[in-house]
Amino acid sequence: MDNISNIFHNDLLPSLGARANQSIKLRKFIISPYDSRYRIWETFLLVLVVYSAWIYPFELAFLRHLSWKLFLVENIVNSFFAIDIILTFFLAYLDHKSYLLVDNPKRIAARYLSSWFILDVCSTIPYQPFGLLFNKHGNGLAYRTLNMLRLWRLRRLSALFARLEKDIRLNYYWIRCTKLISVTLFAIHCSGCFIYLIADTYPDPSRTWIGAAIPNYRSESLWVRYVTAIYWSITTLTTTGYGDLHAENPREMSFCICFMLFNLGLTAYLIGNMTNLVVQGSCRTRNFRDTIHAASRFAARNQLPEQIRDEMLAHICLRYKTEGLKQKETLDSLPKAIRSSIACHLFLPVLEKIYLFDGVSFTCRLQLVTTMEAEYYPPRETIILQNETPTDVYILVSGAVEERIMIDGREKVRDDT
Amino acid sequence: MDNISNIFHNDLLPSLGARANQSIKLRKFIISPYDSRYRIWETFLLVLVVYSAWIYPFELAFLRHLSWKLFLVENIVNSFFAIDIILTFFLAYLDHKSYLLVDNPKRIAARYLSSWFILDVCSTIPYQPFGLLFNKHGNGLAYRTLNMLRLWRLRRLSALFARLEKDIRLNYYWIRCTKLISVTLFAIHCSGCFIYLIADTYPDPSRTWIGAAIPNYRSESLWVRYVTAIYWSITTLTTTGYGDLHAENPREMSFCICFMLFNLGLTAYLIGNMTNLVVQGSCRTRNFRDTIHAASRFAARNQLPEQIRDEMLAHICLRYKTEGLKQKETLDSLPKAIRSSIACHLFLPVLEKIYLFDGVSFTCRLQLVTTMEAEYYPPRETIILQNETPTDVYILVSGAVEERIMIDGREKVRDDT
Amino acid sequence: MDNISNIFHNDLLPSLGARANQSIKLRKFIISPYDSRYRIWETFLLVLVVYSAWIYPFELAFLRHLSWKLFLVENIVNSFFAIDIILTFFLAYLDHKSYLLVDNPKRIAARYLSSWFILDVCSTIPYQPFGLLFNKHGNGLAYRTLNMLRLWRLRRLSALFARLEKDIRLNYYWIRCTKLISVTLFAIHCSGCFIYLIADTYPDPSRTWIGAAIPNYRSESLWVRYVTAIYWSITTLTTTGYGDLHAENPREMSFCICFMLFNLGLTAYLIGNMTNLVVQGSCRTRNFRDTIHAASRFAARNQLPEQIRDEMLAHICLRYKTEGLKQKETLDSLPKAIRSSIACHLFLPVLEKIYLFDGVSFTCRLQLVTTMEAEYYPPRETIILQNETPTDVYILVSGAVEERIMIDGREKVRDDT
Amino acid sequence: MDNISNIFHNDLLPSLGARANQSIKLRKFIISPYDSRYRIWETFLLVLVVYSAWIYPFELAFLRHLSWKLFLVENIVNSFFAIDIILTFFLAYLDHKSYLLVDNPKRIAARYLSSWFILDVCSTIPYQPFGLLFNKHGNGLAYRTLNMLRLWRLRRLSALFARLEKDIRLNYYWIRCTKLISVTLFAIHCSGCFIYLIADTYPDPSRTWIGAAIPNYRSESLWVRYVTAIYWSITTLTTTGYGDLHAENPREMSFCICFMLFNLGLTAYLIGNMTNLVVQGSCRTRNFRDTIHAASRFAARNQLPEQIRDEMLAHICLRYKTEGLKQKETLDSLPKAIRSSIACHLFLPVLEKIYLFDGVSFTCRLQLVTTMEAEYYPPRETIILQNETPTDVYILVSGAVEERIMIDGREKVRDDT
Repeated sequence: MDNISNIFHNDLLPSLGARANQSIKLRKFIISPYDSRYRIWETFLLVLVVYSAWIYPFELAFLRHLSWKLFLVENIVNSFFAIDIILTFFLAYLDHKSYLLVDNPKRIAARYLSSWFILDVCSTIPYQPFGLLFNKHGNGLAYRTLNMLRLWRLRRLSALFARLEKDIRLNYYWIRCTKLISVTLFAIHCSGCFIYLIADTYPDPSRTWIGAAIPNYRSESLWVRYVTAIYWSITTLTTTGYGDLHAENPREMSFCICFMLFNLGLTAYLIGNMTNLVVQGSCRTRNFRDTIHAASRFAARNQLPEQIRDEMLAHICLRYKTEGLKQKETLDSLPKAIRSSIACHLFLPVLEKIYLFDGVSFTCRLQLVTTMEAEYYPPRETIILQNETPTDVYILVSGAVEERIMIDGREKVRDDT
Repeated sequence: MDNISNIFHNDLLPSLGARANQSIKLRKFIISPYDSRYRIWETFLLVLVVYSAWIYPFELAFLRHLSWKLFLVENIVNSFFAIDIILTFFLAYLDHKSYLLVDNPKRIAARYLSSWFILDVCSTIPYQPFGLLFNKHGNGLAYRTLNMLRLWRLRRLSALFARLEKDIRLNYYWIRCTKLISVTLFAIHCSGCFIYLIADTYPDPSRTWIGAAIPNYRSESLWVRYVTAIYWSITTLTTTGYGDLHAENPREMSFCICFMLFNLGLTAYLIGNMTNLVVQGSCRTRNFRDTIHAASRFAARNQLPEQIRDEMLAHICLRYKTEGLKQKETLDSLPKAIRSSIACHLFLPVLEKIYLFDGVSFTCRLQLVTTMEAEYYPPRETIILQNETPTDVYILVSGAVEERIMIDGREKVRDDT
Repeated sequence: MDNISNIFHNDLLPSLGARANQSIKLRKFIISPYDSRYRIWETFLLVLVVYSAWIYPFELAFLRHLSWKLFLVENIVNSFFAIDIILTFFLAYLDHKSYLLVDNPKRIAARYLSSWFILDVCSTIPYQPFGLLFNKHGNGLAYRTLNMLRLWRLRRLSALFARLEKDIRLNYYWIRCTKLISVTLFAIHCSGCFIYLIADTYPDPSRTWIGAAIPNYRSESLWVRYVTAIYWSITTLTTTGYGDLHAENPREMSFCICFMLFNLGLTAYLIGNMTNLVVQGSCRTRNFRDTIHAASRFAARNQLPEQIRDEMLAHICLRYKTEGLKQKETLDSLPKAIRSSIACHLFLPVLEKIYLFDGVSFTCRLQLVTTMEAEYYPPRETIILQNETPTDVYILVSGAVEERIMIDGREKVRDDT
Repeated sequence: MDNISNIFHNDLLPSLGARANQSIKLRKFIISPYDSRYRIWETFLLVLVVYSAWIYPFELAFLRHLSWKLFLVENIVNSFFAIDIILTFFLAYLDHKSYLLVDNPKRIAARYLSSWFILDVCSTIPYQPFGLLFNKHGNGLAYRTLNMLRLWRLRRLSALFARLEKDIRLNYYWIRCTKLISVTLFAIHCSGCFIYLIADTYPDPSRTWIGAAIPNYRSESLWVRYVTAIYWSITTLTTTGYGDLHAENPREMSFCICFMLFNLGLTAYLIGNMTNLVVQGSCRTRNFRDTIHAASRFAARNQLPEQIRDEMLAHICLRYKTEGLKQKETLDSLPKAIRSSIACHLFLPVLEKIYLFDGVSFTCRLQLVTTMEAEYYPPRETIILQNETPTDVYILVSGAVEERIMIDGREKVRDDT
């Protein structure tokens, strides 16, 4: 039997969905994707994904002979991903049409086998051990190239960022920046490794980008060679192009052409995203500045007395602060029942303290409450003018009001609730 | 006689227009531009256009002596375009003022002769065969330069992109990206070919950009020379400018100056377009995040109980999903008659199943239907509070409702329709 | 006496202002700034401004000994600007507070003397002839440097662009692009000339950017030296920086530092403007795509019959085309009297043809007319459903309507007006 | 006792807050942050901050032996910051929750000690004098590195810019540009100093970026070395990368990698901000152009007579000018009492001059006034058509009206008030 999950457990709001799903009972041996232990396991795998993203291009380019330590580490990492493949067969999934958490093992298996199973297996097979059966060293370029399949694991990172961007508890700006920086760093690392590999496998070492600059580069330490490759990579990516390191043969030139085309797109994408973030970030301050500016100019042009001008500006400042919370828009967009619940929660306790409504029935009070609104006034603001026609009833929740009658002199009434 | 076509067959919606026009009968021997066979012919010509865009600059710069194979291929390509010129005289066109499909041969001919006929002919004349009459080889620079007129065919590609951008069945983002990449690739290819031509025709080969870097460049293979030219071109376009290849004489410098000015514009255009796409793409997610954020802060500030908070967030999530479909805006902008038709289609079958409206006349039901609205509620949301004044009638289409009376305990009523 | 000009003759709408002012009579000998002959004179001066902008930096850097021909041309140009200074004393100006065209000679003189008179005079004095009195050659660096004051004339170009941007008869996109290209070209020209001047006045020619690349650069032709300078300039501006030409001494480095800082700003400004233009340009197509997309999805999700779907899409297409003209917004923002005039003009002739309103008084008709609205329907659209409650009266202006009664079969009524 | 300050004294509007707070009496010896003398002290410190930002990276890289003059200047600067630390204990602060100016010494001290006290002290300790106790010279790299802690003072600049951006009296555009230029200049200065330091401390001077270009660079003057470092820095930042100066050893390459990554972000941020400013700046002109364009096209399409067209355009121009002041939006967003005060101030004097309202009571007049609106009409605009149903009463405040009755000929009535 499939469990019915709430309709809003979509990928847009996993955090809310997670809470609601934790209480749903699934079949035996089936794990919920919102289970906290599974989340920890996922996070642990992400660390391994980052490690994989770094090590496999590096290994391909720089490590001719794999040390047994690294060999061991790699196979442990692979085994973790193998475990995850098995786990996936026991993992309930969210059906995107019906918003049901499917826990039927057959459907889970069918979905996994028809989607990413083959690629997941390909990115987990230990090629070196297999290679050792046929080849003494098992370090051939072929095996290391097959290792690049493991970069398929990066789809987990991509999925993570897609989820984090929609998670409202996190700052959109920083998530987006982190993602862009990650993509840039990965592009730099990969291209640095590939250009080194191209130079290293070229028949004439003196006609390679690195060989032309450092004649005996193979005798240099791993650190020097790696830094040089990354330096070339970032010099090209940022389009600085000093020219101290540059392509020397058609093979390198072809790679450069592809890399620069990619860079053109990446740079445009980075700038586009940054512009988007800057425009969004400055939007609210700009609106406020425009409003205040308009009010000031209006006051100046009409030669309003200073007191009215200050009242205007104070009100706009306060409104900006409370509207920053988008209170009114939020309430207006909700259906009537929810608005009534909120009004009850907010205003009923206030209403009960007021002696004016003492004898009023509960039903009547409930209906009064739904038409009430919260308003904030800055200090010293005039609320009702003396001879104005009255249209509203104000209930003072917090603060003090002063009544000034202009004819007989002054009378002060202070109410604090 | 001209056929009247629907007023909405404008260039903005060719796909809809196509369907409607297919049923319209044109004169004998006149082809409709929306005919599927003509569309296939057009697509086939586009492939030849792409080939032309690549081959003619390449031929101009790199191929001193045209092989007879290439000569043959070229003339076959030209003959296809010659056929298309003839076909155009039998092709109905859409008049942009009256939205009529004009099938009068005289008007078709007049329109074509006064617009692009001459340029189309110029870009189709086989210059080499003519050249052979006067010149033994027919491979002179003059003939190859005349071939550049064939790039006029690119207007077909430009028209294609303009049409695809407005075709709603395709993803705007990818069309736009493909267009930008195509323009960039063409600019790189052309400038690479031209700079090679400039170097190749310079009297002193050692004072050219390629001759200074590769002394005997003419003895290198075609592949090496082409890659080097493209490498120079893209190094300049992306402003990397390693400096291993650079202008050596005033002629190359002048070309570089023009190319760099063009690049400045192209780069700004690329970034501008990418920013536009990024801003559009993130617009919806951002709105949702802002709304959810405002609701969460409102709940936190007013210390609303967790249950009301969850109801609010669930409702906003659902609304975001259904409003993503822009249902309400779409309906509101339609005229009354269409809205009524839609309402009939959607709600009449529902109304007929309800026993409450059993005796009601058809006319009355029709009028009820036009005032009905579809609303979606997330599970466990409160729809009507107990003591609220009732203002709406709800008809349950799908799902279940629970009635809870607080005084006597609980009573559950489940309705499924 | 000052003439009262219309209040809307502000700098935002010079073209409209121009027409209205042409009819206003000014004092004797006073010229209106909107006079067509004065406009021609202004345009002629702009040509001289462009020439000045090019020649003076060029002269400063490249021309050690001024030929008598150039000397003559320059003084003729200067004399034209001298004439303009005198003319300005007879030129009425628009007061920006009262929107009056001021033709009082005293006020004109006072305004000019207190604003730009001194700078205008400084940029017109012929320094070379004065120099000849004291110095035999009159070609010293000091005189050529003083000539740079003539670049003050560029304010005329800047004013022209500010005016053109606000002129609604011109395409904003192209004006903006032309302005950006002009600024870029001027920056390239100026920096090219200055860097050559710096190299030319450096004591050790072999330690200059040009001397290090071309040992005997002074013996090269003017063309080669100018192209090399511009090539350096644009290589730096676009940040290509091949490195074949680069700063060699601290003086050149200092200039480079300033120029690159300026470039950073200019590039950001260019990209910002291009993004702005791209975003604006694609705004309308995007809105249309979004609306059509939403309607299609709505139809698909609710499984509406094909006929209703086509009606919806046809209506949206038509609305997009007519709303592209922003008809409704334009009318709504006008005051009542203007709207009434427009309604009279548009609908009164239609109303008079209709026999239904034959006996109706003129006043009544006038009031009917103001509440009328124009609506467009695509062909085959349903306008009124059979059993709907009627709320509007339609008057058919152009086209045909078909009446279909479903019960008795069909009846067709065609009305053409 | 804490004083209650107005609720709008938030960081968004310091200028308004400042005025209001100046009148509030604080405890003895406690200084208000809005005190004008304190503001002068703060401004004076900002000058020292700018000096610090420049001198400490410079000292670190270029000054091996500190002259006693510089030593003296530095310690004087430090002493000023030490005084400021003491002053902060007597400085009232604005509580951001209650908007109270807190003048309780204990709370002030507690807040300061728990926030920035330690960092402020660390950035003020004179490390050189302490160093002299242990070390003869006191100029070791360690002491100069410790000096970098003084860059913590830059937080004052950052706070200043945050405040200025929100200050409505200043132009947002220029504040923003100044901030971006400051950040860029500081990045260039710092990276120039650091790369020189890295070269200077490298064991083999001939394998450093500067040593490879200028063999005996240490014998060059300070000016030449500084300019060269800045030239390298800006060449890299703008991605020009001539290549005449480039990293030679892994240590420099590592620094370059970090710097270029930072540059990528900085450039994207600069372009993003510039785009934001350009888009904002052109927003109003664009709206106006769109509206005028729509009106012109509407008039042309409907063949409206020239007189109506001119009325339309004149009205839109006027509306654009007055709406530029956002009069209506400003008023509508204010609460009723403020709107009434403004209406009283604006319209009551006008109403009292009119003989029509002579006998009307004050209360009635007050209520009339609140429903009045100001409207502007361009000259020659029709206000009421002859047979229109009257709905509004117009009171002429300034200007003239002409009454034209079409039947009997013409009658003119001029009213000037």
